[in-house]
Amino acid sequence: MRNETILVKEARGILTVTFNRPKSKNSINGAFLRELNDALDLSLRNSECRMVVLEGQNGVFSTGMDFNDRASGNYDEKLDRLSLVRYMEMLKRFREIPRIVISIVDGQVIAGGVGLVAASDLVIATPRARFGLSEALWGMLPGMLLPFLIRRVGFQKAYSMTLTTMPVSAVEAHSFNLVDEVTETPDQTILQLTQRLIRLEESTIENIKQFFLKLWPITGEFEEMAVAESFRLMNDPKVRENIDNFVRYKKFPWNK
Amino acid sequence: MRNETILVKEARGILTVTFNRPKSKNSINGAFLRELNDALDLSLRNSECRMVVLEGQNGVFSTGMDFNDRASGNYDEKLDRLSLVRYMEMLKRFREIPRIVISIVDGQVIAGGVGLVAASDLVIATPRARFGLSEALWGMLPGMLLPFLIRRVGFQKAYSMTLTTMPVSAVEAHSFNLVDEVTETPDQTILQLTQRLIRLEESTIENIKQFFLKLWPITGEFEEMAVAESFRLMNDPKVRENIDNFVRYKKFPWNK
Amino acid sequence: MRNETILVKEARGILTVTFNRPKSKNSINGAFLRELNDALDLSLRNSECRMVVLEGQNGVFSTGMDFNDRASGNYDEKLDRLSLVRYMEMLKRFREIPRIVISIVDGQVIAGGVGLVAASDLVIATPRARFGLSEALWGMLPGMLLPFLIRRVGFQKAYSMTLTTMPVSAVEAHSFNLVDEVTETPDQTILQLTQRLIRLEESTIENIKQFFLKLWPITGEFEEMAVAESFRLMNDPKVRENIDNFVRYKKFPWNK
Repeated sequence: MRNETILVKEARGILTVTFNRPKSKNSINGAFLRELNDALDLSLRNSECRMVVLEGQNGVFSTGMDFNDRASGNYDEKLDRLSLVRYMEMLKRFREIPRIVISIVDGQVIAGGVGLVAASDLVIATPRARFGLSEALWGMLPGMLLPFLIRRVGFQKAYSMTLTTMPVSAVEAHSFNLVDEVTETPDQTILQLTQRLIRLEESTIENIKQFFLKLWPITGEFEEMAVAESFRLMNDPKVRENIDNFVRYKKFPWNK
Repeated sequence: MRNETILVKEARGILTVTFNRPKSKNSINGAFLRELNDALDLSLRNSECRMVVLEGQNGVFSTGMDFNDRASGNYDEKLDRLSLVRYMEMLKRFREIPRIVISIVDGQVIAGGVGLVAASDLVIATPRARFGLSEALWGMLPGMLLPFLIRRVGFQKAYSMTLTTMPVSAVEAHSFNLVDEVTETPDQTILQLTQRLIRLEESTIENIKQFFLKLWPITGEFEEMAVAESFRLMNDPKVRENIDNFVRYKKFPWNK
Repeated sequence: MRNETILVKEARGILTVTFNRPKSKNSINGAFLRELNDALDLSLRNSECRMVVLEGQNGVFSTGMDFNDRASGNYDEKLDRLSLVRYMEMLKRFREIPRIVISIVDGQVIAGGVGLVAASDLVIATPRARFGLSEALWGMLPGMLLPFLIRRVGFQKAYSMTLTTMPVSAVEAHSFNLVDEVTETPDQTILQLTQRLIRLEESTIENIKQFFLKLWPITGEFEEMAVAESFRLMNDPKVRENIDNFVRYKKFPWNK
């Protein structure tokens, strides 16, 4: 498998996916979602695999949706709606796949990138991690990821992160369960977890994940609503202008 | 606007409401709810306004429903049911209004006052803040505010505060998200927030609030049940006696 | 009342139940559930009683379902399904009974024992307490207790405890509300609580508990599903083998 946007390696029951779009700060585009999906497929082909580890590079985990695909020149309405649906499906797949999905966050994670983290089964962060929902500054909202974030951190912290757009440190994120462990040495934490998790049958992981889905369902009705609202806002003229100004002139909406 | 129960000022995108019933420790009566409602209307008339800040005075944020209105001499059953409905509607309005509602708690907040805090979008407290649900001591329960409190702090802390009636310090309240920040200088926190929040469009605040309402709905069915149960308990002969003894003789139910 | 599995005493409005199956580390069997149920009945006969305190002995609170009853020689399918239902009904009864149910955890609590803790109204732990959901290691899952655990600690911590099977210390458990207070002197905490809780009418406790049941219902549909899934897994040939190997040879599933 030859990938453009991620690096994949497999060893001792762990499939590791390293996000690899340094020029666009690991933002999420169609190719990224497709290749990450293929990597999850690959993990299923090895019945010894128990964990899928996601990590960034160079102090960036992920910076959310790629604005270049949304700038006027490149924009394709049909493709865009599809990419929203695919993003939502990726988050759902993390919850369902009979592998334990672990994000290691060392540095920055923004907007849609926070969704990949929130939908992960476990999150390990270094003290350098910072989590921010910047959508509101652009006139949007982090619709599709919110049920996954609320599931992790409860209503209030998801709400205050969305409304204030203020970034949150690793220690704060740990205090309200966005992060399960803060450590300078994520690899050692993974090693400890491995010793425990290789004892689990694949079918047990599947049974547990299916059971929790029943305890905390995310309905198809919600998904449609979230995609529709995200699509509506993304096509708001003001939001389009904000994105265009950023892609063309690196100008932020609040610098008027 | 000439107010009896609150002081209102407006500057730099912030409408500040200072509760001003020192004699009755900022307890909540009909005039207070009416005037607070008017203040929210006022904030809507200024399209530059982004935040509504609520604060107490002299070490008291609010001590909940005014018992004087409930003592036998003054009691009007119809008015009383109406004031329960209006209190519930105030909490709901905080969630819906396209302004960011922030409570600054410096000192005591009890019973229904905790509802104003819990329904706020953001809560800033000084180390002097103390939060208590005293209703059970009088034979009542904090029915209408509980969904707002659970939304903020989860089931267990709302439950233990209700059952034990034990007051909670600012630091404890922060540890379980009843408070978003503890600081000696709430004005500086407001200033920092302002720099961020003035970047948001009014419509973005509205979109976010509407979206979160869908994620965590409070049903009309619940509201009716909560009002009915509060009304039922308030008219329980034992509870009426407790309130009368307090209003007439400053006697607490547990001093027999 | 002559008990085999628990010790019961009553004084000053508190009924104390001490788990007393030292040989099987306070594991839960049919007699235990029956006698605990009788103890709850007893607390209702004393209208002065406000609190039911549950505690272990010798550094063990409870180690969950008794595997001896599930080993092939002793196994009775019908009895087993019944004991699952009775366990679920016990957890539900904690939520409904007009007494404040308090667990004091001094030492180990595992699997189904965590359910007794999670369903308690209040949980006091010493620094020696350790909480673990070991079910997944055996190929099972902690189905029936999860709604009670989620109610206390939110989705994510219930999920990570279930998936990772890693035990959690008292301090950690307190940080995410599985424990309400960590103290070296639980008796003093009980004394403080008593001073507060004897002020509550029995009817007030009942009203509060009924109200919270409406705010956070656990449906009959869920109960049936949880019992069915637990029963299905317990009769999985692999799980039966794991249990048999443990009961006969003290061999754990992960020592192959």
